Amino acid sequence: ETVLQGDIERGKEMSGVCGMCHGDNGISLIPIYPNLAGQKEQYLVLQLKAFRSGERVNMAMTSHAQKLTDQDIADLSAYYAQLDPKPE
Amino acid sequence: ETVLQGDIERGKEMSGVCGMCHGDNGISLIPIYPNLAGQKEQYLVLQLKAFRSGERVNMAMTSHAQKLTDQDIADLSAYYAQLDPKPE
Repeated sequence: ETVLQGDIERGKEMSGVCGMCHGDNGISLIPIYPNLAGQKEQYLVLQLKAFRSGERVNMAMTSHAQKLTDQDIADLSAYYAQLDPKPE
Repeated sequence: ETVLQGDIERGKEMSGVCGMCHGDNGISLIPIYPNLAGQKEQYLVLQLKAFRSGERVNMAMTSHAQKLTDQDIADLSAYYAQLDPKPE
C-alpha cells in the first residue's frame, strides 16, 4: 500500500465538521469522544479507514468516514497529529 | 449503569503491560498505536469495554481487555487520563 503524504493545510480546511465534536483545537468537547491533538498520525489513518470500511463501528464516525478518500484521510490525520495536545 | 470512581494509584500499578506498547508515560512507542496520556477518561472506559465485549476488535487489545473487571477499567482509565499529554 502506498503511503500518502498528508497535507496539513488541506486537512485543516476539511476539519470543520470534525471540530464540532473533537474541538477546533483537537481537544474534544465531549467526554465520550477522544482528543485528537497530537495523536499518532498512523493511528489516526488506520482508525479513519477502519470506520470507513465498517471494521470499527460508530454511529457518528461511520457516515463521516465513508465520504473520505485516502488522501482526505491522510490530510486530516496529518493535521490532527501536529496539533498541540496541551494547548495554552 | 453505576459510574465507578477510578483509583489512579491502582491504575498505575496495573499499567505495566499497557506501557509496553503505549509507553510508560502514555506516549505510544509504536506509530500505529495511540497515545493514551491525557485522553478523555470516559472515552478510555468505553474503548476498553468495547474491546472486552468484542464490539471493537484488535488482536492485541482483545485478550488484554477480557481480563479486566469494570473496576480495573475505571482505574486504568483514570490513570491514563491524568498523565501529561506533552511530557517534558
